Amino acid sequence: MDAKTARICYEDFEVGSVRIFGPRLVTREEIIEFASEFDPQPMHLDEEAANKSMLKGLSSSGWHTCALMMRMIYDGFLRESSSLGAPGVDEVRWVRPVRPGDELTIRVTCLEKRNSGSRPQVGIVRFSLEMLNAKEEIVLESSYSGFFGKRYPGSA
Amino acid sequence: MDAKTARICYEDFEVGSVRIFGPRLVTREEIIEFASEFDPQPMHLDEEAANKSMLKGLSSSGWHTCALMMRMIYDGFLRESSSLGAPGVDEVRWVRPVRPGDELTIRVTCLEKRNSGSRPQVGIVRFSLEMLNAKEEIVLESSYSGFFGKRYPGSA
Repeated sequence: MDAKTARICYEDFEVGSVRIFGPRLVTREEIIEFASEFDPQPMHLDEEAANKSMLKGLSSSGWHTCALMMRMIYDGFLRESSSLGAPGVDEVRWVRPVRPGDELTIRVTCLEKRNSGSRPQVGIVRFSLEMLNAKEEIVLESSYSGFFGKRYPGSA
Repeated sequence: MDAKTARICYEDFEVGSVRIFGPRLVTREEIIEFASEFDPQPMHLDEEAANKSMLKGLSSSGWHTCALMMRMIYDGFLRESSSLGAPGVDEVRWVRPVRPGDELTIRVTCLEKRNSGSRPQVGIVRFSLEMLNAKEEIVLESSYSGFFGKRYPGSA
């Protein structure tokens, strides 16, 4: 969204601020659908094979969990922001399996922000992302930097 | 797959070895389908908005590119291996946009391997992953470590 009309611009992110989004229910059907297309390992497709795996039961593909994370931060704040995209992700840890029926929330912490070196109308914000299940156990940890348009180009 | 029957076990990975898998055609339809579900930012959904974005044209969600990477390494070697899963990804860089019509290949380099500290029947292999388009430009760089069963438990 254009920084002139976006509700959330670079200037609005506050280092240290924490926001929580969700919950998002994860169903058995969508776990199997995603895995069938992108990650057809038996532990993501078939209960019997999954019970014998290290994860001891059906669980989502780690990439499915990442895709759900993306959708949760999109719905949570990116869609009303001046987001211009992201160059990557610093790391992703699949800490615990995501199970059918899990209700996921995501905790987004603003870690730091800085001006783009080359573009005065753009700033870079770094976030930590933690996804939790209903027992408040962390299932995924990640961090990434995103580009955001500035409401006032040249502002610090 | 059980290490007794898998064609590729921990012992078979050679540090420094390079393998290339693909190509995989990426269509406009699947870019839009994935983005609609997981990453509905205009630059992944709509040509006109995409042309005005930093990426200057429709491109896949970075998470879609990751999901395609997963499928390509599954088809390439994981499915006939004793893979037991992975605890995460060290980093992901979306270096260039992936466009409708791109034919992607993936270059997998075995970086290092070591025994699991706690489980004599398991080893850990670290890989670098580079996805390339038909012009041999890198579109994605990543690295990750995976767990693999050993054909001979206790072997180094």
